[in-house]
Amino acid sequence: MPGTHSAKDIHEDINCPAACSSRAAKFTELQPLMANIEPPREHDNSPVDPEQPGPRNQQGAGARFLKGVSYFSGDMKVFGKWMEKQFFLLQLLDWVLRGAAQVMFVNNPLSGLIIFAGLILQNYWWALNGFVGTLFATISALILQQNRGAIASGLYGYNGILVGLLMAVFSNKGDWYWWLLLPNIFLSMMCPIVSSALASINSRWDLPVFTLPFNILVCLHIVATGHYNHHFPQVLIQPRSELPNITWAEIDVSKLFMSVPVGVGQVYGCDNPWTGGIFIISLFISSPITCAHAVLGSAVGMVSGLALAAPFEDIYFGLWGYNCVLACIAIGGMFYALTWQVHLLAIACAFFCAYLGSAIANVMSTFGLPSCTWPFCLSALTFLLLTTGISAVFKLPLAKVTYPEKNLRYFWKLKKQEKIQTADKERIESEEEQKRIKEEVVMNEKEQLRLELERLEERRGEGEASDDKDEEVEQQGTEDVRHDDLTEVAVADLV
Amino acid sequence: MPGTHSAKDIHEDINCPAACSSRAAKFTELQPLMANIEPPREHDNSPVDPEQPGPRNQQGAGARFLKGVSYFSGDMKVFGKWMEKQFFLLQLLDWVLRGAAQVMFVNNPLSGLIIFAGLILQNYWWALNGFVGTLFATISALILQQNRGAIASGLYGYNGILVGLLMAVFSNKGDWYWWLLLPNIFLSMMCPIVSSALASINSRWDLPVFTLPFNILVCLHIVATGHYNHHFPQVLIQPRSELPNITWAEIDVSKLFMSVPVGVGQVYGCDNPWTGGIFIISLFISSPITCAHAVLGSAVGMVSGLALAAPFEDIYFGLWGYNCVLACIAIGGMFYALTWQVHLLAIACAFFCAYLGSAIANVMSTFGLPSCTWPFCLSALTFLLLTTGISAVFKLPLAKVTYPEKNLRYFWKLKKQEKIQTADKERIESEEEQKRIKEEVVMNEKEQLRLELERLEERRGEGEASDDKDEEVEQQGTEDVRHDDLTEVAVADLV
Amino acid sequence: MPGTHSAKDIHEDINCPAACSSRAAKFTELQPLMANIEPPREHDNSPVDPEQPGPRNQQGAGARFLKGVSYFSGDMKVFGKWMEKQFFLLQLLDWVLRGAAQVMFVNNPLSGLIIFAGLILQNYWWALNGFVGTLFATISALILQQNRGAIASGLYGYNGILVGLLMAVFSNKGDWYWWLLLPNIFLSMMCPIVSSALASINSRWDLPVFTLPFNILVCLHIVATGHYNHHFPQVLIQPRSELPNITWAEIDVSKLFMSVPVGVGQVYGCDNPWTGGIFIISLFISSPITCAHAVLGSAVGMVSGLALAAPFEDIYFGLWGYNCVLACIAIGGMFYALTWQVHLLAIACAFFCAYLGSAIANVMSTFGLPSCTWPFCLSALTFLLLTTGISAVFKLPLAKVTYPEKNLRYFWKLKKQEKIQTADKERIESEEEQKRIKEEVVMNEKEQLRLELERLEERRGEGEASDDKDEEVEQQGTEDVRHDDLTEVAVADLV
Repeated sequence: MPGTHSAKDIHEDINCPAACSSRAAKFTELQPLMANIEPPREHDNSPVDPEQPGPRNQQGAGARFLKGVSYFSGDMKVFGKWMEKQFFLLQLLDWVLRGAAQVMFVNNPLSGLIIFAGLILQNYWWALNGFVGTLFATISALILQQNRGAIASGLYGYNGILVGLLMAVFSNKGDWYWWLLLPNIFLSMMCPIVSSALASINSRWDLPVFTLPFNILVCLHIVATGHYNHHFPQVLIQPRSELPNITWAEIDVSKLFMSVPVGVGQVYGCDNPWTGGIFIISLFISSPITCAHAVLGSAVGMVSGLALAAPFEDIYFGLWGYNCVLACIAIGGMFYALTWQVHLLAIACAFFCAYLGSAIANVMSTFGLPSCTWPFCLSALTFLLLTTGISAVFKLPLAKVTYPEKNLRYFWKLKKQEKIQTADKERIESEEEQKRIKEEVVMNEKEQLRLELERLEERRGEGEASDDKDEEVEQQGTEDVRHDDLTEVAVADLV
Repeated sequence: MPGTHSAKDIHEDINCPAACSSRAAKFTELQPLMANIEPPREHDNSPVDPEQPGPRNQQGAGARFLKGVSYFSGDMKVFGKWMEKQFFLLQLLDWVLRGAAQVMFVNNPLSGLIIFAGLILQNYWWALNGFVGTLFATISALILQQNRGAIASGLYGYNGILVGLLMAVFSNKGDWYWWLLLPNIFLSMMCPIVSSALASINSRWDLPVFTLPFNILVCLHIVATGHYNHHFPQVLIQPRSELPNITWAEIDVSKLFMSVPVGVGQVYGCDNPWTGGIFIISLFISSPITCAHAVLGSAVGMVSGLALAAPFEDIYFGLWGYNCVLACIAIGGMFYALTWQVHLLAIACAFFCAYLGSAIANVMSTFGLPSCTWPFCLSALTFLLLTTGISAVFKLPLAKVTYPEKNLRYFWKLKKQEKIQTADKERIESEEEQKRIKEEVVMNEKEQLRLELERLEERRGEGEASDDKDEEVEQQGTEDVRHDDLTEVAVADLV
Repeated sequence: MPGTHSAKDIHEDINCPAACSSRAAKFTELQPLMANIEPPREHDNSPVDPEQPGPRNQQGAGARFLKGVSYFSGDMKVFGKWMEKQFFLLQLLDWVLRGAAQVMFVNNPLSGLIIFAGLILQNYWWALNGFVGTLFATISALILQQNRGAIASGLYGYNGILVGLLMAVFSNKGDWYWWLLLPNIFLSMMCPIVSSALASINSRWDLPVFTLPFNILVCLHIVATGHYNHHFPQVLIQPRSELPNITWAEIDVSKLFMSVPVGVGQVYGCDNPWTGGIFIISLFISSPITCAHAVLGSAVGMVSGLALAAPFEDIYFGLWGYNCVLACIAIGGMFYALTWQVHLLAIACAFFCAYLGSAIANVMSTFGLPSCTWPFCLSALTFLLLTTGISAVFKLPLAKVTYPEKNLRYFWKLKKQEKIQTADKERIESEEEQKRIKEEVVMNEKEQLRLELERLEERRGEGEASDDKDEEVEQQGTEDVRHDDLTEVAVADLV
């Protein structure tokens, strides 16, 4: 019941500050992994999907088509609701598939299925590791009794799939080295713990944890073992120490274009352009806006690579693209409501992310580490922490984030309501409101008086005030001093 | 007076959010170093130690024995109270000894004394440096007028002893290089500053600072001077760059078993197994639970080292153990109340800590740095930030943390009270409460109305709402929008 | 209207915790960049500068002289107010000049002008890059609609000038490599974004962002391109790997003395002692306290370099000074009110900063990075996070920070008012106050009861309390348990 729940939240917020109610704190810290984690609503009595207001006479077939599309696009809420009544293993499969797609912020099992198909096309062993990672991350979240809604949205699985995949990708023992599944399972099961810990921190700023748990855990594994390890050797990564040979005449334009889908594929560590293409399709199914920003991000990454004189092989391989893909999706419509200003911001973020990506890759290669998706996480967090006076740049509350199209509808609705209220309010001409405000002010003044008294008592303890240079105290300063207006009056009356 | 003090805290929390009262903020930021820092209670009229409810007839001798034990086990509260009336230098000695033991979360001067004995057994010069470090850290805390209760619990000393010891351990000038005392004193005196600063940050999440100040300051010293320094050269530490030679046939089982006490000793940088054994005894005196988890942690570290194919010398030397020792103590009963779920969590944390230890050691060796206790700090903080729905995993409020046995009693008491209240409440059948809740709801609604008005005025300023696509706004969305239920009604009345 | 604004803030703080009102959060996060960012007041009707209470008969000429000085010393508020009515480009120039001076915490366009003169004396190309950086950072802040008062104080420009300057300094392509302006403009325009993001975080602890955005962005640029880059190669920086040759007989005392102004100059990356001297003059114009602490900091840095056996060239080159200069200014009067205790704290901070500087320089040279002003930022933030019981160490609220002299007057005024109030309060003998407090307590008790009820309901959900070992629950513990005093009574009545 999101409506009621929200109302309750407001109550708590008003009466009880963050520190006093550990329950409230706990609750909000359980929430904010990445997106809408409300448990699927049971009270939704409307038989049709509420997003599609039902077929009207003049629209007929089109509406019916849209309704059909709504069943497998977006976050497939109807399917999710239906799943709740199914066998547990089937539910778990749904969560795993959603987890696979959540890497790209997509809460859609169909997209997840297509993504697994793409992974299988790339490499069976990698796909298996990815599946094991998602599965055990989800199971671990269940054991730790994390928020069921978040688990059902796949928010505890996406770090698992990346951990599993990338551990397989960077292993130097080649495919089908079965022992690798041991650290894979251990680190996947650590995912929900790290996610929950980071969410406790990030929730203070209403920020998601993105793929930080994956970054932390995979870097942990790679650097803990390293290239020179008997059990789990890693691919050798070394810092660049000489001028790369770049001849602009040698550039291969077709490969350069191919690097756009490859960049999308590299989000999952895949260098097969067909796999990247399949991923793009899976994004389009759920959200065309996400899909467009993914392609745009990959292109921005490619351009940045050229601008910063990166070796062509790196660009062809998609290493400049995948972080920008994620950053561009995150800013462009996912956590901000999409307006043209936000669109520009997303492009700026993608450029910044590419720059950051080059920097982080160079730093981490010193330790034999790949850059993972650190650049995406850091750049997206920076842009989400941005506060601006531009009203068209609206950051959605984390609990309201779903997918770009729905986020946009939410934003439009807010805007419309504001307009109505503005017009409305001018009419009522603030009669009753004024009265109520006055009452509140009286209440507040009493509160302030009490605070004043507390301060007074506090100060009495400090005692030894230096009252030399009294004449230097500027007149104007008196109004600067925050909490003294009241006591001042009292003083004036008595002096 | 902890009861009164707490009640006052609640008052402040209710009426005054974190931002408004700088006094409250200051107070809470002074508090949260590591454990129970309430100043010893003067109003404690009961002549016997309240933890031991006095000899009863049926228990007689046993109770008297337990009471005797209580005088020098746990946190030796009676002794601490007695100390308050003594000569200042004697008090300072008490604080220094408690500081020495607080490295292992033990607030007990007897344990501290035994630990110093162990250090002297290891190396006179190191013991001297450790003593100087603890002493000056405590003095600096006194100068900076930090919380007296925290100082008396040794919470400002434990970073000092580690700074002093490890600076001596890693110095390349050998023993009795007297100039080393200069940076030792300077950095020890910086400890309370760094502690206080970190506590300001960590207190927001009710987290202790652990040994982070020590880690920061020792790494600072080592990397600021480095191996190639004329005045304060450091031991040369270099990253591994080739496959270590590990032959499983060569493993020495007796040394492997010895690595468990050595691991405990390495918490203080000591590689003598007898020293480690003495430390284990000192832990047992204060708290058997702590002692058991210390040994368990060291064993887990050893196993992890074998699993990750570490060179045997490192394992024998206890380098895989000491972080796990601390992590296992911290999670297993110290900051969580000990239940079997928490016990499993502590073991998981120890494994994670070992993994992390290997990773951090590899990263830091690039800079010629040892890994210090960074792995412990980071893994323990991660596990303390974890939020879970499991009711048996109860994180104690930082102000209530003392030692595992007492923490457990506190937890049991809470549980029992809950049970009584639950039963009780079902009886009274919520008559008066319902009434009161209604009153509160009315109050809250008034508050909300005021907030609505503020928002309305805010929005009026934003003005330019985009009202196209109005028909797309979904019905269901209306209840999603948090703060509009009230104004909506007004609108509906007027349209 | 700072007075009104503050009063409103208090209202908000009291009634509405941080989490509930996104507006309030946004507002406070927009604020806390570095200093007094209130928009220049229009309502200031007093024709003369209010800081100088007008010429009095007995002072005559002296007062008139002081009044004249006040027009171009301090933050030149009168000039700033006059500027508001001028042409936009002229305003922009004012903001750029203030931005140039804000690197040293000086909000004064005249100082900025002198600093630019010093830069031109050093190197035309660097000065140009610095100007471009400040300009585009300010423009970017305008585009992003950041707080106008902060922009007008130059708080969005100072990172820009450093980014521009240092990118030119560390470029390996030599002067007048025009392509460098491209990344310069891009990164300068990123400054306000990074500033705003960091302010969102730091504002939680009422901390400024210092030069962190500059550090992040310049390190980003240097490490993203590196020494081996075709387009933007950087100067080669490598870690020290052998014992430097230090012969104390070779020390050059005149160069050592010269290193003090050079250290001040190195804040802007300039090694010309005359440029450093000009900077010192520019500081003196605005604030003699700032100037004195700058020189003191540079001297402390030099001494630290000698103590830690740094190569003499580094000391002569001012590399040990510039961080200490900034740290000493920040602590010595800028963010703390200057008392002799704070003065000692500033010196301690400068020493700590020098230590940290050496450490960070060694770590960052591994990645081919200079240490920038990271040491200053980290050490100053540590000392600002310090909480202490010493009443003479008074940290100004960030919104009240202007320049040391004015900060001091604010502190004295507070002290004086406290004294009056203390005396006053003893007279009224808390008659009415007591009454009011009682009323508030009644209110609070009602609040608490409500909270109790919430907790009761919460606990009922948790249910399975373990009530074994009930007899072990200590008597004294009952008052420890925070939130049970009330319910306990109810229980006692019924049992």
